[in-house]
Amino acid sequence: MTEAEFLAALRLLPLHPSARGLRDDSARLIHAPLVVTTDTLVERVHFLSDDTPQDVAWKLVAANLSDIAGKGAKPDGILLNYPLSDDAWDRAFLAGLGEVLAACGTSLLGGDTVTLPAGAPRVLTVTAFGCDTPAPPRGGAGENDALWVTGTIGDAGAGLAIAQGAAGPAELAARYRRPQPRIAEGRVLSRIAHAMMDVSDGLLIDASRMGEASGLAVHLDLAAVPLSAAYRAFAGDDRDARLTAATAGDDYELLFAMPANTVPPVPATRIGRFARGTGLRLSDGAATVPLPARLGFEH
Amino acid sequence: MTEAEFLAALRLLPLHPSARGLRDDSARLIHAPLVVTTDTLVERVHFLSDDTPQDVAWKLVAANLSDIAGKGAKPDGILLNYPLSDDAWDRAFLAGLGEVLAACGTSLLGGDTVTLPAGAPRVLTVTAFGCDTPAPPRGGAGENDALWVTGTIGDAGAGLAIAQGAAGPAELAARYRRPQPRIAEGRVLSRIAHAMMDVSDGLLIDASRMGEASGLAVHLDLAAVPLSAAYRAFAGDDRDARLTAATAGDDYELLFAMPANTVPPVPATRIGRFARGTGLRLSDGAATVPLPARLGFEH
Repeated sequence: MTEAEFLAALRLLPLHPSARGLRDDSARLIHAPLVVTTDTLVERVHFLSDDTPQDVAWKLVAANLSDIAGKGAKPDGILLNYPLSDDAWDRAFLAGLGEVLAACGTSLLGGDTVTLPAGAPRVLTVTAFGCDTPAPPRGGAGENDALWVTGTIGDAGAGLAIAQGAAGPAELAARYRRPQPRIAEGRVLSRIAHAMMDVSDGLLIDASRMGEASGLAVHLDLAAVPLSAAYRAFAGDDRDARLTAATAGDDYELLFAMPANTVPPVPATRIGRFARGTGLRLSDGAATVPLPARLGFEH
Repeated sequence: MTEAEFLAALRLLPLHPSARGLRDDSARLIHAPLVVTTDTLVERVHFLSDDTPQDVAWKLVAANLSDIAGKGAKPDGILLNYPLSDDAWDRAFLAGLGEVLAACGTSLLGGDTVTLPAGAPRVLTVTAFGCDTPAPPRGGAGENDALWVTGTIGDAGAGLAIAQGAAGPAELAARYRRPQPRIAEGRVLSRIAHAMMDVSDGLLIDASRMGEASGLAVHLDLAAVPLSAAYRAFAGDDRDARLTAATAGDDYELLFAMPANTVPPVPATRIGRFARGTGLRLSDGAATVPLPARLGFEH
């Protein structure tokens, strides 16, 4: 598509009032404070060349809104940096973009379109804004705080294997293709969590980052890591399966720290605690588990 | 470089207070209103593979800050989406990034790093924020307003030809490699201009966009288009040379509309006026000039 055709199609999607009809080089953000986050997806690195354009659009926006959810913020628009290519791909991408904007209750603020040299892998960036948040830092956990996570872990990692050809439940592939940012849960948790972040690079690496940012050690119990029935059917639930789940990426769940005697007001699982010291310590029930060589995605 | 090495190096550059040491997935913007703009540069499309990484960094940030200047805003930080590659390129890019942040008085808010498949052209995005602005729209010109432009036009276009091997003055190549966003001029002009935008895709196309957004025709006099002495020495100053200048991109000057009887408080040249009607009309002194097939870059 040409830039003009693409912009005309974008104007049919939910536009932010600040977008000025996408007829300006810049948008005006009126809320403060705002949280802002940005993620780039690269073809053959972050998504497969045969992932549908609808799913790529969904994942690009959902991955960013998951960071907004991690701050407990209300989504307040996105910017899109998009490489124009063939009409069919662009139209399918626009369809997916419309779906994810509607599903997440947000809108388009602006962006930029470019053309890539022939044959270059697609590189897509979204920058997302969120408002109305206390923005709990990832480094706010206190000694003896409990570590919790929403939802189930490892589904998207298994879903990636299924998308690449392994036999397995369609619902796992859907977790990989259409992650659901925990926006509503983030809104509630941000008012009470000491520290919060989304889990996108792998539970172990993200938990260790929260510990490091908080200046504390993290003790995480693999036996407590929540696995879905579909994941257990696909991969089992022995220690290896739990380690695989806890080091896979793309979960887009919320990881948060709360005082030990508090129960969170949304469905979540207690998986560990913070203690004086540094680093990540793994157990599996009563047994100590050596750290795997790889805790998650380090890019 | 690895992501960790790159982040460590970024932490030596001016960091925005909201960047939280680049240890969080998101930054917190506390000013409102904010203007936001984003531009993506693609290797072999927007820059040459043998442009130095320092110059690519400069241009990436300067192109975005030129949009901020077009709103008369004070730069309030940038986000960087960066593809990590070989150490030498990354280090040189970081050096250029430090130079342009210092020269433009702004700082790093955050961003994302990715790895591209081997051999893929680099794709780099910057998103820039500006605060404290009346943000004159590009569509605010009134009937009989005069059209003005800062600086000189066409230098960067000639500089691109020189960068690609043509013989010509080094100062033109410098205009292509190291554009200077008109931040200070934008701050002053935004308080009095009816409409303002930066000239990045070509004077003619950008002037026609301002006319279209304002619902008016634009009459532009090629004889009035300001050319530098270096440009005239390189390309002459006949009608063809003026048309080439007025359709080249990357000027990063400010185009603005003011009441006909007003003189702007910064150095600028009056090049035309707005009138009832639609479209762009070109003259060269007293002579009417047909529009060239191409008014500038349409992406």
